[in-house]
Amino acid sequence: MQMIVTKDNLEDFYLKDPGYDPATSKYYEGIMTQGNGYMHVRGSYDEGLIAEKQDLEYDRKPANVTLEVQRFPLSKWGTFVPGVVGPHPFLMTEMINQPYFFDTVLTVDGERLDMAESRISDYERILNLSDGVLTRSFRWDCRNGAALRLTYKRFISMDRKHLALSQLMIKGLSGSARVQIDAGINAGVRTNGFDHFTSIRKNQRQTGCSLEVETNGGNKVLIVSEIEADADFSGKKDINDAIYSSGTVEINENTEFLMTRYIALCTDRDQEEDSLSFRARSVIEEARRAGAQTIYDDHKTAWEKRWSASDIRIKGDHRAQLAIRASIYHLMRAADREDPRVAIGAKGHAGEAYFGRYFWDTEINMLPFFLHTDPEAARNLLMFRYLTLDGARENAKSYGYPGARYAWESSVSGHEECACWQYADHEIHVTADIAYAMKNYISATGDEEFMENFGLEILIETSRYWVKRADKNRNGEYELLAVMGPDEYLPMTRNNYYTNRMVKFSLDLTCAELESLEEKEPLKYRVLKERLGLKDDEKKLFKEVADNMRLPKTDDGSDIVPQSDDFFDYADIDFDEVWKDRSKCFGTCISQEHNYRVKALKQADVLENMLLFGPEFTDEVKSKNYDYYEPITTHDSSLSAAVHGIIAARLGRMDEAEKFLDKVIDIDMDEAAGGAKEGIHIANCGGLWQLIVYGFAGLGPAMWNESADFKPMLPAGWEELEIPFFWKGRSLKVVISDNKAVLIER
Amino acid sequence: MQMIVTKDNLEDFYLKDPGYDPATSKYYEGIMTQGNGYMHVRGSYDEGLIAEKQDLEYDRKPANVTLEVQRFPLSKWGTFVPGVVGPHPFLMTEMINQPYFFDTVLTVDGERLDMAESRISDYERILNLSDGVLTRSFRWDCRNGAALRLTYKRFISMDRKHLALSQLMIKGLSGSARVQIDAGINAGVRTNGFDHFTSIRKNQRQTGCSLEVETNGGNKVLIVSEIEADADFSGKKDINDAIYSSGTVEINENTEFLMTRYIALCTDRDQEEDSLSFRARSVIEEARRAGAQTIYDDHKTAWEKRWSASDIRIKGDHRAQLAIRASIYHLMRAADREDPRVAIGAKGHAGEAYFGRYFWDTEINMLPFFLHTDPEAARNLLMFRYLTLDGARENAKSYGYPGARYAWESSVSGHEECACWQYADHEIHVTADIAYAMKNYISATGDEEFMENFGLEILIETSRYWVKRADKNRNGEYELLAVMGPDEYLPMTRNNYYTNRMVKFSLDLTCAELESLEEKEPLKYRVLKERLGLKDDEKKLFKEVADNMRLPKTDDGSDIVPQSDDFFDYADIDFDEVWKDRSKCFGTCISQEHNYRVKALKQADVLENMLLFGPEFTDEVKSKNYDYYEPITTHDSSLSAAVHGIIAARLGRMDEAEKFLDKVIDIDMDEAAGGAKEGIHIANCGGLWQLIVYGFAGLGPAMWNESADFKPMLPAGWEELEIPFFWKGRSLKVVISDNKAVLIER
Repeated sequence: MQMIVTKDNLEDFYLKDPGYDPATSKYYEGIMTQGNGYMHVRGSYDEGLIAEKQDLEYDRKPANVTLEVQRFPLSKWGTFVPGVVGPHPFLMTEMINQPYFFDTVLTVDGERLDMAESRISDYERILNLSDGVLTRSFRWDCRNGAALRLTYKRFISMDRKHLALSQLMIKGLSGSARVQIDAGINAGVRTNGFDHFTSIRKNQRQTGCSLEVETNGGNKVLIVSEIEADADFSGKKDINDAIYSSGTVEINENTEFLMTRYIALCTDRDQEEDSLSFRARSVIEEARRAGAQTIYDDHKTAWEKRWSASDIRIKGDHRAQLAIRASIYHLMRAADREDPRVAIGAKGHAGEAYFGRYFWDTEINMLPFFLHTDPEAARNLLMFRYLTLDGARENAKSYGYPGARYAWESSVSGHEECACWQYADHEIHVTADIAYAMKNYISATGDEEFMENFGLEILIETSRYWVKRADKNRNGEYELLAVMGPDEYLPMTRNNYYTNRMVKFSLDLTCAELESLEEKEPLKYRVLKERLGLKDDEKKLFKEVADNMRLPKTDDGSDIVPQSDDFFDYADIDFDEVWKDRSKCFGTCISQEHNYRVKALKQADVLENMLLFGPEFTDEVKSKNYDYYEPITTHDSSLSAAVHGIIAARLGRMDEAEKFLDKVIDIDMDEAAGGAKEGIHIANCGGLWQLIVYGFAGLGPAMWNESADFKPMLPAGWEELEIPFFWKGRSLKVVISDNKAVLIER
Repeated sequence: MQMIVTKDNLEDFYLKDPGYDPATSKYYEGIMTQGNGYMHVRGSYDEGLIAEKQDLEYDRKPANVTLEVQRFPLSKWGTFVPGVVGPHPFLMTEMINQPYFFDTVLTVDGERLDMAESRISDYERILNLSDGVLTRSFRWDCRNGAALRLTYKRFISMDRKHLALSQLMIKGLSGSARVQIDAGINAGVRTNGFDHFTSIRKNQRQTGCSLEVETNGGNKVLIVSEIEADADFSGKKDINDAIYSSGTVEINENTEFLMTRYIALCTDRDQEEDSLSFRARSVIEEARRAGAQTIYDDHKTAWEKRWSASDIRIKGDHRAQLAIRASIYHLMRAADREDPRVAIGAKGHAGEAYFGRYFWDTEINMLPFFLHTDPEAARNLLMFRYLTLDGARENAKSYGYPGARYAWESSVSGHEECACWQYADHEIHVTADIAYAMKNYISATGDEEFMENFGLEILIETSRYWVKRADKNRNGEYELLAVMGPDEYLPMTRNNYYTNRMVKFSLDLTCAELESLEEKEPLKYRVLKERLGLKDDEKKLFKEVADNMRLPKTDDGSDIVPQSDDFFDYADIDFDEVWKDRSKCFGTCISQEHNYRVKALKQADVLENMLLFGPEFTDEVKSKNYDYYEPITTHDSSLSAAVHGIIAARLGRMDEAEKFLDKVIDIDMDEAAGGAKEGIHIANCGGLWQLIVYGFAGLGPAMWNESADFKPMLPAGWEELEIPFFWKGRSLKVVISDNKAVLIER
C-alpha cells in the first residue's frame, strides 16, 4: 500500500497555508473547501482544534450578515449537501451542517495532536486547485520524545459523487510511539447555533462505522466510513454525538503506517433506487474494489475535463492567475451540474453564512461563467428557478399578488426565506433578474427550446405579478414604489432605475416571446394560453406597463442617471467624519438609521445597470456616472468591485480598473482580511471571471452581440491571456497579447 | 365576622360581567383589572380556568402587536408591579408577570369549581369603579347534589400600597358539602411565553403561606398570604411553582363560612427600610389589627379623594358616563403618584401586550388628564423622563449622536427597548413630544421650578441630538429624513410635518428657556452652562436649526398640509378592494409591503399636529385637512379616533364627532370587540377625557390660553356635563348645559 500519486503539481494551481495561525485558521478552512457539487467539506483539520467546540448552541437571530461579529474565531467545521435543509428557529430554512466525516483524532501517550498545542514543524498544507486534493504534511515532536512525520491527503471524488477519500501516512523519524487513532464521524456540529438533528443512529463494524442522522427538515443522511490499514481498527468509541473506529499502531524509527478511509454519504433526497444503507455500502464496496489510486485517477480525469473548458491562463501575473483559478475551482465545485433542484448558495456551500440560500447573484454574477464554460450547468441553474416557480407563486399570493414573485432569499422550495423584512419585502429586482438571465442564456447558447418549454411560463407568471406591483401615477406612468435596489443602503426608494429598467426588460421580453411563439408555433401558443389561463387583456396590460414604465432621469444636462426618483433628496455625508478606519466596512462605522438616509451606496446600482444594458449608454454617459457614483460607493458588498472594474476597463481607465482587480482578488484571496472565513464569495468569483472576460479581454456580451468580438485592454504586466469559451454552440478559445485578440476554434 | 360593607353602589359606576362566556372571559379579565399604582391584578377568576394553562412557554418574537394573534383565548392571569422588569429572549426588557396571589381553588367531592365546567347560575360579577372592589356571586349546584352560594369580594388597597384583600363567603342552600379550599400563591405564570423567575422560595405557616421569587432582572418579590377563617388552614399544598394553605369546611343548608385573606406584596425596589420579610409581615400584622372593614373604609376614602378631583358627570348618556368613569378609574389606578421611577405602560399595567413599556402616549395622550386632575401625578410622569435622561443619552450615543434621544419604547432605564428597527430607529418624535409635554405641564400648573431644575437639562440634551439628526439641504433648510411620524404605516418619510413642527417647537423652547433663565437667574444659568458644557455656538445652532426647520407645504392653494414632503408620491389605494371586512384592522387585510407604499394612514398625523398646535391653523384649514385625511385614515391605532373626534367637535361637525365618540368608547368598552383583552388602551382613556374636555366642553388648552374658557358643543342627549379641574393652581369646576358653561371655584 502507498499514498495515492497525484499529478500536475503546478505552483499556480496551489493554494498554500503557511502554517497554523489563530488569525488565519478559519480563513483557510473556508478557502480550502473541497467538493463535487453534490457535497462539500470545509478545509478544517482532520483532528479539529481542541480549543474550538463545534457543538456550541446559541440563539443566532436575524441580522445583517455582513456586519455581524461571528463566533468561532478559530475553526468552524462545515459539511454540506445542498438541498438538505431544515428550519432554524430564527432564520427560516437553512442548509444544514452535516456530521463531520474526516474526523481523525491522534493520541500519543495521552497527548492529543493539535495544531495549536502540539510541537509542529516543517509544516506544509496545499489545496491543489487542479484536482481538489488537500495535502498536509508536518513533523510532530511528541511530548514523549518521539518524532513523527504525518502526511494527509484527502479529496471528494468528482466522478463518484457519494464518495470521499482520505489517507494518513505516519512515518517514524526518531524514538517510538504508540499512536492511537480514532477515525470516525462526528454529528456534534450545529448550524448557526442550532441542532437540526432529530435523531442520530450510530453503527460499528469490524473495519469501520456509520452514522445516520434525521434532520428537522425531514431528511435522512447516512455516512459510512471504512478503514483500510495494516492495523486492527475494530475498537469502538462512542462519544456523545460521534462514533469512531479506534486502533493503535506502534511507530518506531523508519516504520511507515498508512491508513486509507473510504467515506460514502447518501441521502434520501438522492434520486436513486434502493435503501440508504444498500446504496452507501455499494459505494464503499465499489471503491474498495477499485482502490485508492484508481479512484484518484478517475477523479483527476473528471477535473481535467472541467478545466479544459474553463481554465483561464494569465502570463505575467501569478497573483491574478492563482485568483482566477481559485474562482473557477470554487464555481465548478459549487455547482451541481446534475441536480436542478439546487442552485449555488451565496457562500458557495463553504460556510453557514447566508444560510446556503440562493440570491440574485446566481443569475447576474455567476451565470455568465457557466454560459460560456458549461452551458448544461447554466441551464440547470435556470431549471432551478423553473422548478421553484410554485414557491414563487405562493410568495406572490402571500403578498396579495397574482402570478409569481421570486424570493429574495430562496431555499429549495422557492419560498421567501429572508428573515429581515426590508430585503424580503422590498428588494424585488430578483424576479426580473431571472428573466434577464433567461434571455442571456438563450443568447449565449441558442437554446430556444428552454424558453418555449419553461421560460415563457416564468415570464407570464412574473409579468402578472409586476403589472399588479406597479402603481400608475397621475402622468400615466407606471411606478415601483418602496423598492430596495441593488444598493441595499437605501431600503425604500421610489422608482429605482435598476429595478424599473429590469422590469421593463422583463415585460418587453414576455410580450416579444409570446408574439414570437404565436407566430412560429400557433398550436403550442394556444396550449400555453389555455394552460395558464392567459387573457388577451393581460397581454395588453403587460405591454402598457412595459411601454410606460417610469425611468428616472435628470433634466439638468448632467447626464447623471438618478439611482431613484428620490435619490437626490437623501442627505450628503462627510465620509471622512464617519468612516475613519477604511479597513472596516463603512456599514460598521455608522448606525443603520443614519446609513438609511444618506447618499452612501453599498454597491454598484446605476453602474450595474449600465453593465447589463451597456448599449443603452454612451461611454461619455457611463464615464460621468462613474465619476458621480464611485466616490459615494462604499463597496461594502462583494458584488461591487467587479462591476466597477469592468466599467473602468471598458472606459480605458486602466489605473482604476487595476485597483478594482486588486479589490476583487483580495475579497477571498487576502488571508489577512480573511474574507473566505464564513465561506467563499462565490458571486465575486463570477465577478472576477467577468472582469477578465468582459472587462480586460473586452468580450462583447452575447445578449447584445451576434459574434464573439474582443476589444482587449489588459492590465500592466499581463503578457498573455488565454480564455476558452463556448459561444452560441461553438467551442472557441481566444489568445490575447499586446492587446490583440486571436480567436481559435477548439 | 362578616363580609365588608361597601358603599356608593351606583349603577353608573358598575362594570358588569353578565356571566362566563369563552368569547368574553379574557376581555373581562382586562377591563376588570384592579390596582393602586404600585401593583395591579387582572380580573381573572380566583380559581382560574381549568382549560387554560398559565405556564405555557413559547417563543414570542417581535411582531406588530396590533396585528398579532394572541394565545390564551380564555384567560391570562396578570399580576404586575411596574418597575419589576427583566430581559425577554426576543423582546428586550419587559414588565414581569408576577405570581398570582388571588389563587383559590375549591373542590367538593373531587369536583373542582370552574366557571366553564361547573353548574353555575344566578351569576353576577361587578367591578365597582368608585372603589375598585370586584364582587362575584353565584349559585353552584355541585355534582354531589349540594347547592352553594358563593360570594367573592376583593380589592387592592388604595392607601396601603402593599396590601390586597380578598373575601370568600360560602352559604349552604341545600344538601351538604365538604368544601376543600386551597388558597395560595401561584408562580406558575409566564410573561409572553417566558419564565423570568430564576428562583422560587416557598414557605408555610399555621395561618398562611408565602412565596418569594427572584427575577432575571435581578429583583426579589415576596408575597405573603394570611388567612382569617373559622377553619383550620394549616394544611399545606406545594404543587410545582405554587403553594397553598389548605382547609376543609363542612357546609350544610344555611351555614355560612367566611374566609378573609390578607395579602402583602413587597419588592427590593421599594424605597423602604428593613428586609423584605419584615416589611411584608408588618403589612400583614397591621392589616389584621385594623381588620377588613377598616381597611376597606380607608381604601374607600382614598378613592373618594381621587374621584372628587376627577369625576366627570354626564347626565343623559349612561354609556358615555360609564365609559369616562372606566377611563378615569384606569388612569388613576395605573399611575403611581409616588414613584417617578415608573410611568404608565401602554396597556395600563393590565396585560402583557406592549411589554409594560412607555411610549409617547404618556406625554401626548394621558398627561392632559393628570395636568388638570392630579398635577403631582403629572409631575411624576415628567420626572420619570428626567430620571431616565442617562438612558436617553446612551441611546443617542449608540446611534452616533451627542445629547439625548428618548427611546421609542422605554422601560425603567430609558434605553431603547423596541425590537423592531423601523420604529426604534425612525419614529423619533417622542423626544420632541417630551419637550412639548413639559411646556404643557408648566402652562397648566405654573410649576416653573420644574423647568429650571429638570426640564432645561432635558431640553439642552435633546436639542444637541436634534441639531445633529437634522440634515441641511441645498436651500439652507434643515430636514429630518427617514422619519416615521405618528402614522406608522409610512416608515421612512421625508420631513414628516408633525415631527418637524414638534422639533422646531422643542428647539424654540430650549432657546426661550435659556434666554429666560439667563435674564432671571444669571447665576443658575452660568452653573447650568458649566455643568452641561454648553457653548454659545451650540445655542446659536439651536436657533438656526429652529428658525430654518423645514415644514412641508403645498403651493396649489389647496391648504392641505402635506403629512411629509414625499407624501403625495405614495400610491393611492382602492380601500374597497383591499379592506373588505371592516370589522378587522386594515393592517390585517394588506401585506406590510403594500401598506408601506400607499396613502393609508394608521392614525391621525397632520390632524394630531393641528390638535397640538391649534392656534396655527384656521378652522377652514383644519376642515380641509380633515376632509382630505380622514377618508384615507384607517384608525387602526387606538390613538386616532379621539383626535378626530376633538377636531370634528371643534369644527362643529357633531355627527362625525359623535361617531368618533362611539369609536373611542368601543375601543375598550365593547365586549364583543374585546379590545381590553390584552390590557387597557390607556392612551385612549386619556383620549376620551380629552375628547370630552377639549372636544365637547371646548376647553382651550392651557398651552395657548391664560384663562379657562369653554366653548361647549355637547353631543345630542347630553343634558348636563360637569367637569372638575385644576387650572394654573386654581381648583375649578365647570357645569355645562344647553351648551352654556358655568365656571365654579371649588
